[in-house]
Amino acid sequence: MVAMEISFIPDGSVTTPQGFRAGAVYAGIKTPGPDKLDLGILASDLPCAAAAVFTKNQVKGAPVIVSQRHVADHRLQAIVANAGCANVCTGQRGIEDAWEMCQLAAAKVGIDPHDVAVCSTGVIGRYLPMEKIRQGIPQIQLTSDGGLHLARAIMTTDTYPKYGAAEFSVNGRRFYVGGIAKGAGMIHPDMATMFAFLTTDAPIEPGFLDRTLRAVVDETFNMVSVDGDTSTSDSVIVLANGAAGGEVIQAGRPGAEEFSQALRAVSEHLAKLLARDGEGATKLIEARVEGAASREDARRAARTLTLSPLLKAAVYGNDPNWGRVMMAVGRSGAQIDPDRASVYIGDICTFERGRAIPFDEQAASAALRQDHVRIRVDLGLGEATATAWGCDLTEEYVRINSAYTT
Amino acid sequence: MVAMEISFIPDGSVTTPQGFRAGAVYAGIKTPGPDKLDLGILASDLPCAAAAVFTKNQVKGAPVIVSQRHVADHRLQAIVANAGCANVCTGQRGIEDAWEMCQLAAAKVGIDPHDVAVCSTGVIGRYLPMEKIRQGIPQIQLTSDGGLHLARAIMTTDTYPKYGAAEFSVNGRRFYVGGIAKGAGMIHPDMATMFAFLTTDAPIEPGFLDRTLRAVVDETFNMVSVDGDTSTSDSVIVLANGAAGGEVIQAGRPGAEEFSQALRAVSEHLAKLLARDGEGATKLIEARVEGAASREDARRAARTLTLSPLLKAAVYGNDPNWGRVMMAVGRSGAQIDPDRASVYIGDICTFERGRAIPFDEQAASAALRQDHVRIRVDLGLGEATATAWGCDLTEEYVRINSAYTT
Repeated sequence: MVAMEISFIPDGSVTTPQGFRAGAVYAGIKTPGPDKLDLGILASDLPCAAAAVFTKNQVKGAPVIVSQRHVADHRLQAIVANAGCANVCTGQRGIEDAWEMCQLAAAKVGIDPHDVAVCSTGVIGRYLPMEKIRQGIPQIQLTSDGGLHLARAIMTTDTYPKYGAAEFSVNGRRFYVGGIAKGAGMIHPDMATMFAFLTTDAPIEPGFLDRTLRAVVDETFNMVSVDGDTSTSDSVIVLANGAAGGEVIQAGRPGAEEFSQALRAVSEHLAKLLARDGEGATKLIEARVEGAASREDARRAARTLTLSPLLKAAVYGNDPNWGRVMMAVGRSGAQIDPDRASVYIGDICTFERGRAIPFDEQAASAALRQDHVRIRVDLGLGEATATAWGCDLTEEYVRINSAYTT
Repeated sequence: MVAMEISFIPDGSVTTPQGFRAGAVYAGIKTPGPDKLDLGILASDLPCAAAAVFTKNQVKGAPVIVSQRHVADHRLQAIVANAGCANVCTGQRGIEDAWEMCQLAAAKVGIDPHDVAVCSTGVIGRYLPMEKIRQGIPQIQLTSDGGLHLARAIMTTDTYPKYGAAEFSVNGRRFYVGGIAKGAGMIHPDMATMFAFLTTDAPIEPGFLDRTLRAVVDETFNMVSVDGDTSTSDSVIVLANGAAGGEVIQAGRPGAEEFSQALRAVSEHLAKLLARDGEGATKLIEARVEGAASREDARRAARTLTLSPLLKAAVYGNDPNWGRVMMAVGRSGAQIDPDRASVYIGDICTFERGRAIPFDEQAASAALRQDHVRIRVDLGLGEATATAWGCDLTEEYVRINSAYTT
C-alpha cells in the first residue's frame, strides 16, 4: 500500500468541502430551550453522485421510505432534516408529509424534489407539525459555513453536535470529505446509525461511492452500540458533488484509496462521538477482539462486549470485573475456547490463556476511570480482529429514557 | 383434553414432595449480612430419575461441566449448591473443586458422588474457598421442610427467595412437584436460567422426564429476561424419586399430562418470580405477542420486548411511549408488516392495524403503574403466540451492577 496523506480537520463538517451550503432554524418542533435548532437543509450547488444506507428495522419511518426512493438513481442534491418528531408509524399521511418536506426544501433551494433526501428524528407515532415546517423552511439561511448549525438542528438527546472533516490529495489536487451525525439512544445500527450526512467535493463514480460507503459503514457506524435498540430512522447519506474538479475517482484509479481512507476517518470519528455521547454515558468504551476464528466472530464478540449491560455498568463503576468480559464473549455466538482466551483491561492482563492471573486491581480500576476505556480480548483461535465502540451504562440513561414522551 | 385438577401451593418448595430433605448453612463464601446462608444440599431418600438443562454460554462454569457428566445417566440423588463464587474461568482447579464438593456432599448424605449435581453462583474468575466448604458441608442439617433454607442459600442479588409447589392426582393417588430458583441479573436464559431445582415424588420414566423438562423450560425459564446477559452457570435440574408410589408415569400414560401441567405451573411461577426480582426492578413486564406468522417469530418478538432497554426504561417511568414497542418488534427479526400490527398497553389500544389512534394517556400510564404490566402486540399475520417475562430498567440496576466485585 502507498503511504497516504490524510489530514483530519476536527472542526470541519459537511460544508468544509467546496460547493456545499447548510443552515437551520428553530421551527418549534422540539421542546424549546436555549440554543435549539430543529429544522435544517444541506444543499450542494451542483448535482451529486449519492449513496445511502438505511435502518434494517422492519418498522421504517416514512422519511426512510421516501429517501430510499429518491436515492435509488444514485443522484441527490440536498437533504432536509428535522428533530423532535420521527414521522414513524404514521401511515400514508406520514409518507405525504415526508414528500411535502422534500418539495418545500426543493423550492427553497431551486432543485427537483426527487433530488432531496428527508430525515426526521424524535418521538415515534406522532404526525409532523407541517404548519411549522411550512413556515420554517423558507426562513433557513444556507451558508457555506452552516454545517455546524445543521449538526445542532438534528440533535435530540445528544449533548453535543458531532462533526468532522478530512483532507486528501490526488495528483496535487486537494479534496475534502466532511460529515455530521446525531444519535445518543436507540443506537445499535444495523446497516446505518441514526443520522450521518457525509459530503465530498471529489468527483466520485456512483457505483464506487455506494460500495465504499457500505464498506466504511460496516466498520464504523455499524460497530457502535449504545443500548442495543435499533432505530427506525437510521440513515447515512453521502453526497459527492465534484466541485473540486479533476478526474472521476473510481475503483482501482488514482484517489480511490485516498477517498476511502478519508471517508473512513470521518466516519470513525463520528462513530466514536456517537458512542461517547450515548445517553447518560460518562465514557467511551473501545472493545477490541483479536485472534478470532473469523471476521464475523470477531465482530460479534466485539459488539456483544459493547452491548452487555452488566459489563457496561461495571465500566461505569470502574469495577475490573473481567468475568463479565468472558461471560459476554461466551454468549456472543462467536467460537470460543475459554482455555485459549485472554482478557486485558487497558494494558493489564487479568486472564491469560484460560487462567485467572493475579493483577493490580487498583491499576485496572484506574484504566477504567479513563474517558476512553479500552477492553481487549484475544481469543487465541485465529487471525481475525474487530473493534466496536460503546459507552457505559449509568443511572442517567435510565432517567433520560423513563420519561421521554410525557 | 381431560379436565385436570392441579392445585398450586405458593409456600411449597423442593421439600414439599415426599422423600426429599434440604438444608443450608452460612459458610462465609458470600459477604456476611443478616439472614445469610450460602451453602446447601437437596437430597432424596431414594435414587431419582433426573434430567437437566444447562447454559448455552460457551464459557461454562466448572460446576456445569461436572453436573452435565453426572446427569448423563439420568440418575441423581442430591444437589449441592453455593452462592458467592461461581467457580467459572477457573480451569482444571475449578473442575477439581467442583468434584470435591460432590464428594463432600455425597459423604454427608451417604451416597455415590456421581449421583450429586453441583451448582455454584456468584463472582466469575475466582477459586472456591474450599476450606470453608469442607468445614461447612458437614454442618448442614437436612430436614423435610428445609427447602426454603436452600432457596435462601442460593440467593446472590436476589431480594427474596423463590419457591412454589403444585399438587396433582392420578387414579386417586396424590403427587407433588416442588421447586426453588435463584437469579436477578445476568438473566437471559438460553436453555436454562440461573438455577432452578425441581423435585417430584411421582415415579417418572427418565426419557419422558427429560423431554417434559425441555418443553417446559422452553416456555417458562427460557422466556425470562432481565438484561440480555446469559449466565455461565445456568442450571435447571429436576429430580423424580417416586416416593409416592404408583405406576411409572410416561408419555401417553395416566398422569403424563397432569405431571407436565404441574411441572409447567411451578416453572412458570418461578420464572415470573425471577423476572419480577430482576436487579433493581420495580415491576414485572409480561409481553404477549399474538398473530405472528410462526411460533419462532412470536417468541423472538416477545423476548425482544422484554429486552429493549428503551422500552424497559419507559415502563419504569410509566411512560406510554408505544413507539418503542413497534421499534422493538421491528428489530426482533420476526416478520412484521407495520400496517397490520396493533399495540396494547394493558387493555388500551394505542396503535391499531398500522394507525396511531387517540388514546387516554392517563389510563395507559396507570396501566404501566401496576406491579404486573401487560404489553400486547397483535402482528396480524398468523396464529402463533408467545409470552415472555421481564422487568423494568431502573437506576438501581445500574447501581447494583456498577460495583459488584469491588
